[in-house]
Amino acid sequence: MKILHSVPSQDGFYMPAEFSPHFGCIMIFPHRRDSWQNGAYAARKAFAEVIRVISKSEKVIVCARYDDYDAARFMLPDNVRVVEMESDDSWARDVAPTFVTNGKNIRGIDWGFNAWGGLADGLYFPWDKDNKMARKLCDLLDVDTYDKRSFILEGGSIHSDGEGTVMTTESCLLSGGRNPDMSKAEIEEELKKYLGAEKVLWLPKGIYNDETNEHIDNICAFTSPAEVVLSWTDDKDDPQYEMSESCLDYLENTTDAKGRKIKVHKLPLPSPVTVTEEECAGLDDMNGQPTRIPGERLAASYANFYISNGHVLVPQFGDKNDSTALKILSELFPEREVVGIYARDILIGGGNIHCITQQIPMAEGFGYINKA
Amino acid sequence: MKILHSVPSQDGFYMPAEFSPHFGCIMIFPHRRDSWQNGAYAARKAFAEVIRVISKSEKVIVCARYDDYDAARFMLPDNVRVVEMESDDSWARDVAPTFVTNGKNIRGIDWGFNAWGGLADGLYFPWDKDNKMARKLCDLLDVDTYDKRSFILEGGSIHSDGEGTVMTTESCLLSGGRNPDMSKAEIEEELKKYLGAEKVLWLPKGIYNDETNEHIDNICAFTSPAEVVLSWTDDKDDPQYEMSESCLDYLENTTDAKGRKIKVHKLPLPSPVTVTEEECAGLDDMNGQPTRIPGERLAASYANFYISNGHVLVPQFGDKNDSTALKILSELFPEREVVGIYARDILIGGGNIHCITQQIPMAEGFGYINKA
Repeated sequence: MKILHSVPSQDGFYMPAEFSPHFGCIMIFPHRRDSWQNGAYAARKAFAEVIRVISKSEKVIVCARYDDYDAARFMLPDNVRVVEMESDDSWARDVAPTFVTNGKNIRGIDWGFNAWGGLADGLYFPWDKDNKMARKLCDLLDVDTYDKRSFILEGGSIHSDGEGTVMTTESCLLSGGRNPDMSKAEIEEELKKYLGAEKVLWLPKGIYNDETNEHIDNICAFTSPAEVVLSWTDDKDDPQYEMSESCLDYLENTTDAKGRKIKVHKLPLPSPVTVTEEECAGLDDMNGQPTRIPGERLAASYANFYISNGHVLVPQFGDKNDSTALKILSELFPEREVVGIYARDILIGGGNIHCITQQIPMAEGFGYINKA
Repeated sequence: MKILHSVPSQDGFYMPAEFSPHFGCIMIFPHRRDSWQNGAYAARKAFAEVIRVISKSEKVIVCARYDDYDAARFMLPDNVRVVEMESDDSWARDVAPTFVTNGKNIRGIDWGFNAWGGLADGLYFPWDKDNKMARKLCDLLDVDTYDKRSFILEGGSIHSDGEGTVMTTESCLLSGGRNPDMSKAEIEEELKKYLGAEKVLWLPKGIYNDETNEHIDNICAFTSPAEVVLSWTDDKDDPQYEMSESCLDYLENTTDAKGRKIKVHKLPLPSPVTVTEEECAGLDDMNGQPTRIPGERLAASYANFYISNGHVLVPQFGDKNDSTALKILSELFPEREVVGIYARDILIGGGNIHCITQQIPMAEGFGYINKA
């Protein structure tokens, strides 16, 4: 693995869309007792179900701490690779590399990671193990890596259509805990240079109470170029209403890098999901403080889905809108099987299916021993 | 990765010779302060030189503990893969899988490892991290693994000619710390079944003061089918004389699996190498006891070489016989470049170049991202 200090776009590399062909998917076996109730017992079962479905159509690589390797190996399907890697928590989307391609080879970008806000408003300390993972994952895959640790970014805060347009949220990328000394224009320039994009769409907001400072991947996603789903509620008394409305307004009044109008499909939100007293009791405190308070609203959203080669994996909450979300996404992904996965036990940790996955694009010459 | 409970030979798999084509080589970045003087400072430099030469003709995968990843990454060439993996020490030959092939695919055998003798006469306690590595390395490579942890064996105690003959030593395999409840015939049967061999050659002895109970890989090696080098001294006052003579006698009076006489090339030993007071002072104690005593004779031997696709890497000791060993091996490996590597800093740890390497045979469909 070479550690590169050049710029991906200048090297001819860009970030492909998630709906482009994958070699595989990176995930992390959950373990953190103040993130996941009951020693991550329920979370592991939910992660395993996500892994099982993804592994039907692409290679899943699961990072497990030394202490968790045996548990992961015995819980997960044979065709999954379990690899030893220390981590602070389990959010592959945000700590694994963002992969870029030149249409033939792939490389990884190693952004700086500071637990969604560092000492300003980050969610845990320290975060050094997480911050080291992107580079190690590139080494594991034997792909070169761009050293961009000086710039704080999580994979969950960006979406790419693979055709020159990248989406993000202002609330996250302009937050005081990321790159506070950079202007919006400077941040946009970095996104363009590193993701090979020509235009950045800045949605103003994300999902209410989303502790990532409102990542794009919880509110909006490309389903094809110039076409997105946007998390939506018709309840004007819900603080989410104005947030989603501001995004809709933005999207309806902009175009993508190719000058196309953007078609917005409203994806209903579930009724507000709040954490129970029992669930909070299963979580360890962090530095003597509870990480969740009973009744706290969680950032539940169907937009936090993962697009694998063969499936779209959609969070389900036991809500009346569960089936509506599946129906909408089935129409938008006619070539994939849309699968609902009960994801309350992932949501309690603070994110959802998209947050715990990171796709590896397909590359020429990509194979493994015994693949034939 | 599937964990297999079948038998390799019955599945059509056998252990190829080391001089067959490799995909690559597994090594471990040294760290243990009671094995390697001065916090493994000198050992790391020696390992890095071995890695540098091997990486010229095959992919080297270096396992580094979490704490050592950055140091390894910055010390080693770009084309080497550094992967995170905990270990107790750094002897890849003995803790990595023994790979078997069916001529198309490869699989790994996960033998039991107990630090060369367990509670009977093992060299450290505990050894659980080492014992877990073979399975994890198969997972890393995405190859299936035979679970043979019930049988204690180190890779350094076997050599295969790839044509049905396996060599080992009685002193090691019949030692009380390996499989004391099994007879010689029973052990031989396991070797045949797992290595796909028809005949096992039992050399009586290894190298004097070899703390592995005299591994075969320190005294004798196949250079081609029915042709070996045997470590040799003409000094009848050296306790090694009788040990080497007993092996020569055995080899001259046996045939291989194909009924061929075995051609033995004597490979001179260096003059006895003893550890100095200064070197001992650089080693941490183990449980309050020194791991080496000044003046202690080390098991130096030129037979502990590694055959890569393009090179033969031969230990050098600053001895008058260094160049003789290189000359003999150059004649026996005309298609490879024979390279001497100053290896005193590996020897102090208790082994040499062959002990710190484990080859991965080439397999069909074997490749990596960006290989093309």
